[in-house]
Amino acid sequence: MASPLKVGFIGLGRMGQGMSKRILDAGHDVVVYDVITAATKGLGDAGAKVAASVGDACKGRDVVVTMLAEDYVVKEVVLGPGGVRDSLPAGSIHLAMGTYAIPTVRTIEAEHAKAKQTLVAAPVLGRPDLAATGQLGIVAAGPPDALQTCEPLFQVMGRRTFPAGAKPEHANAIKLANNFVLGCAIEAMAEGFSLVRKFGVIPQVFFDVMTEGLFAAPAYKVYGKIMVDESYDKVGFTTLLGLKDFNLIMEAADLARVPLPSGNAFRDRLLGAIAHGEGEKDWAVVAREQGRASGLEK
Amino acid sequence: MASPLKVGFIGLGRMGQGMSKRILDAGHDVVVYDVITAATKGLGDAGAKVAASVGDACKGRDVVVTMLAEDYVVKEVVLGPGGVRDSLPAGSIHLAMGTYAIPTVRTIEAEHAKAKQTLVAAPVLGRPDLAATGQLGIVAAGPPDALQTCEPLFQVMGRRTFPAGAKPEHANAIKLANNFVLGCAIEAMAEGFSLVRKFGVIPQVFFDVMTEGLFAAPAYKVYGKIMVDESYDKVGFTTLLGLKDFNLIMEAADLARVPLPSGNAFRDRLLGAIAHGEGEKDWAVVAREQGRASGLEK
Amino acid sequence: MASPLKVGFIGLGRMGQGMSKRILDAGHDVVVYDVITAATKGLGDAGAKVAASVGDACKGRDVVVTMLAEDYVVKEVVLGPGGVRDSLPAGSIHLAMGTYAIPTVRTIEAEHAKAKQTLVAAPVLGRPDLAATGQLGIVAAGPPDALQTCEPLFQVMGRRTFPAGAKPEHANAIKLANNFVLGCAIEAMAEGFSLVRKFGVIPQVFFDVMTEGLFAAPAYKVYGKIMVDESYDKVGFTTLLGLKDFNLIMEAADLARVPLPSGNAFRDRLLGAIAHGEGEKDWAVVAREQGRASGLEK
Amino acid sequence: MASPLKVGFIGLGRMGQGMSKRILDAGHDVVVYDVITAATKGLGDAGAKVAASVGDACKGRDVVVTMLAEDYVVKEVVLGPGGVRDSLPAGSIHLAMGTYAIPTVRTIEAEHAKAKQTLVAAPVLGRPDLAATGQLGIVAAGPPDALQTCEPLFQVMGRRTFPAGAKPEHANAIKLANNFVLGCAIEAMAEGFSLVRKFGVIPQVFFDVMTEGLFAAPAYKVYGKIMVDESYDKVGFTTLLGLKDFNLIMEAADLARVPLPSGNAFRDRLLGAIAHGEGEKDWAVVAREQGRASGLEK
Repeated sequence: MASPLKVGFIGLGRMGQGMSKRILDAGHDVVVYDVITAATKGLGDAGAKVAASVGDACKGRDVVVTMLAEDYVVKEVVLGPGGVRDSLPAGSIHLAMGTYAIPTVRTIEAEHAKAKQTLVAAPVLGRPDLAATGQLGIVAAGPPDALQTCEPLFQVMGRRTFPAGAKPEHANAIKLANNFVLGCAIEAMAEGFSLVRKFGVIPQVFFDVMTEGLFAAPAYKVYGKIMVDESYDKVGFTTLLGLKDFNLIMEAADLARVPLPSGNAFRDRLLGAIAHGEGEKDWAVVAREQGRASGLEK
Repeated sequence: MASPLKVGFIGLGRMGQGMSKRILDAGHDVVVYDVITAATKGLGDAGAKVAASVGDACKGRDVVVTMLAEDYVVKEVVLGPGGVRDSLPAGSIHLAMGTYAIPTVRTIEAEHAKAKQTLVAAPVLGRPDLAATGQLGIVAAGPPDALQTCEPLFQVMGRRTFPAGAKPEHANAIKLANNFVLGCAIEAMAEGFSLVRKFGVIPQVFFDVMTEGLFAAPAYKVYGKIMVDESYDKVGFTTLLGLKDFNLIMEAADLARVPLPSGNAFRDRLLGAIAHGEGEKDWAVVAREQGRASGLEK
Repeated sequence: MASPLKVGFIGLGRMGQGMSKRILDAGHDVVVYDVITAATKGLGDAGAKVAASVGDACKGRDVVVTMLAEDYVVKEVVLGPGGVRDSLPAGSIHLAMGTYAIPTVRTIEAEHAKAKQTLVAAPVLGRPDLAATGQLGIVAAGPPDALQTCEPLFQVMGRRTFPAGAKPEHANAIKLANNFVLGCAIEAMAEGFSLVRKFGVIPQVFFDVMTEGLFAAPAYKVYGKIMVDESYDKVGFTTLLGLKDFNLIMEAADLARVPLPSGNAFRDRLLGAIAHGEGEKDWAVVAREQGRASGLEK
Repeated sequence: MASPLKVGFIGLGRMGQGMSKRILDAGHDVVVYDVITAATKGLGDAGAKVAASVGDACKGRDVVVTMLAEDYVVKEVVLGPGGVRDSLPAGSIHLAMGTYAIPTVRTIEAEHAKAKQTLVAAPVLGRPDLAATGQLGIVAAGPPDALQTCEPLFQVMGRRTFPAGAKPEHANAIKLANNFVLGCAIEAMAEGFSLVRKFGVIPQVFFDVMTEGLFAAPAYKVYGKIMVDESYDKVGFTTLLGLKDFNLIMEAADLARVPLPSGNAFRDRLLGAIAHGEGEKDWAVVAREQGRASGLEK
């Protein structure tokens, strides 16, 4: 590798653990921080420095990575007193790898600009197992120089980087749109299953036809299988989180003035499922809600 | 193979040519018919008998296959005077391999039953190149005995048979639902592209993100590419045919009492595209119609 | 009045009884016909001639009025052997006062034109009580001369005639669109009631607010009241008929290439209500179906 | 009247002017405040005391009325330092007569409860001319005792009070739902006009049919007329405000878990109109947007 980077890493959840370990193992100088001290133990044992505060994780760093799940959390960590904005050197980069609302990205970008820092947004595609093995997809956007600086980090965290444009929000728009297409695929399958079930078809057959041909892809295989098995209690992503995600998407569409009729259809089913007490089930449970609307379920 | 079947084959379009040739080459006794005499030449040269009428193609046959594109055509060929119903021996099978409306299937099934014939519905997945090489997907439904009789034919025409149930309409319901999910995927992509474009994202990047991950399947790769390239003039399937197909689906949903909100969203965009003079373009042109609704296109 | 007209009147249901009686009482020469002989008794007793067949009701007439409820019935009565087309003198008028699909109107118009007859379409607004008292709204379209000939009939049947254009389908398009707006109003109220109920509001209060102000009109007063009382068993118009009506509307929109997203929303709730066994209830029962989708009902 | 009340009145826009004047003229003791000092002149001249601050308008008052247009404004006025919460005596009433989001109402109610004050929410129906003449509709909700205390004020401001329940949010839910039904009516008309126009019908005829019969109500007469005249530049309520309003409604529906498919259809058209640069036109301009989606407009 070229010269190692001085990296701060904030947010050691299941994703962050794997991602920061990859960076450390590649020979970079890594300081980690998490509000839950215990979460830093693994990285500390592996040789990372452990910071006592957000500020400590930023001081003197070339790049500080945040991997935080919620908009309000990243805003507090970045904009709060003693936060990233207050602590990161001018000229350094904040590499934000969570999925956030467009207004959040805009606010953070503007605040960093005032402090002569640069925001790179790089939300990821993939789950903790891919994070641990450096196989994430990374959608990265920000000024070209800053993207280049981050490139060595992307290479160890991801199997592929998608350069998404010069404005950080480009990356988040893509991530939101990808989630959007996923939600719509789930809804379309839910509707398709209702249709064939009402004709007396065994759901597994429809699943086989779909996933063997035009739809031989994870979105259909994973969520179609859950619908066939009605295994909504094994939760990958809850209906309530799905609604939250779709509200972010709808907010983005609102800002951009884009009607999303398919998204409305899915969002309505999410609401209906939650109204029926299924907010904590896997969001594929919209298939049951669609079944209710078709007179198939109680 | 077991004992060869006496097969009639009606409908020698691009699909039917390949399918009947596969049956002939497997050693079955094949009589072919098409209303356009010239269409039968290739099969005749290859050794098939050429019938002068629908009736001649049915007489004494174990199975008569129809591969006809339109509901009104199959109804005329089967139910018209001297048609399949009037000519096929009692105890024989009509194997209908086109994609038809549910009421069409029900009518034909009932008429065959009166004549002590059996209907098997087996719509196919795949285009002429797959028909020629015996690589179709075949969704087959009908009485188990009849399915078993047809099995040798399925084996030479298809790479995989999906047994869909004991009623012929089971197969057509699945085929329509599969088309439905495809239309919804096209619509969802169209909406997703509008969203990212309004944030200034280059469409190719969004395409790469989608099709490298959750949506690494033909439906997204084929139609997403058309949207990226805006190559709506290279027509695989026209918007007008798409509308016709979705009207069949909506009719099936009406019969079954199933609301299909995602389907409504797609159907509305098809109508809008046709209203803008794009009925003869590839149906992926709904992405342009969605762009119009978002202020991106004129 | 000017000179009396020679009028045939076919279809003596509850609407037709009142309408033909008004024409008779105005001094016109009236021959009536209904397939159910008993239905003609009242008019016969009042002085109308009673025809033994459709043909007899047409011979020598200036105008033959049809008041028939179904598309297939009007097509049979007009186009069947010995029907209106075969029996009405050249130069005479067929005044069709039912609500029909656009293709039905086009077919009948074309057939009359071949026989040098003229079609006037004049669907009506109002129920049997208004028919009996000559208080219907009449939406009339056809060639200006023919409309003028019919004017004396409109004056005794209706409180107001709306001249809708020179093509018969103009009148039916308006009637369908008016029914469309009604269905959408019912759906919007259904959604509004669900919303306030989930906040714990007593439905009657919302009804009062709506109907005392912006929505002080029959559509809201009649259907809002049914929703407040949940009196879906007192049936004015069934859910199944509502679906049939909306399918006609959607077919018209399909012909005209007009997306109707609000109509889709209503049609989906009609389907859902029917799927829940409420096809024979008043179509305001979509409020219950909307309630189900909101977790309010079982 | 019974004993006069000591009333503070905050917010002297066009609505507040008329409303506070009605209270003053009825003999109550009125102190007015507006952030724009000039706005208080009329009331001051008429005999009201003019406060120099929000706090001064609250001190010693039985009831303080707020008539403020925006959620963020009412939150600042009530919850900001020296605001209503800090200044109104324990046991007194805050009568909030604007239309606010449900979360805003809940927050303000909870804060008043901590200060032993009571919130009554009473959004109004009607425009400034009705405010000036005491002809508003008033949808009032809050604890019964508090409603009774406010009754003399309602009587001079409104032609009718709709008691909406014991929780302030009951009133706002009804107001939002009433606005919701209005938006849906506008959308349904827009769709209906597109449908008839594509059949060549003159829009005025459809307007006449609608508003003479089932829809003889202000919502249809006012907005239908704008569509017929295409007078979208005479703005009653802008598309952008309409979107803001519908976002409040959608937020309420989200909280209550109520899918609102008709609302989605309208919201999508609002977005499309804004995307086409019509954000500052009257929101009836969705008819033009619907026309675009139907190929009628550029």
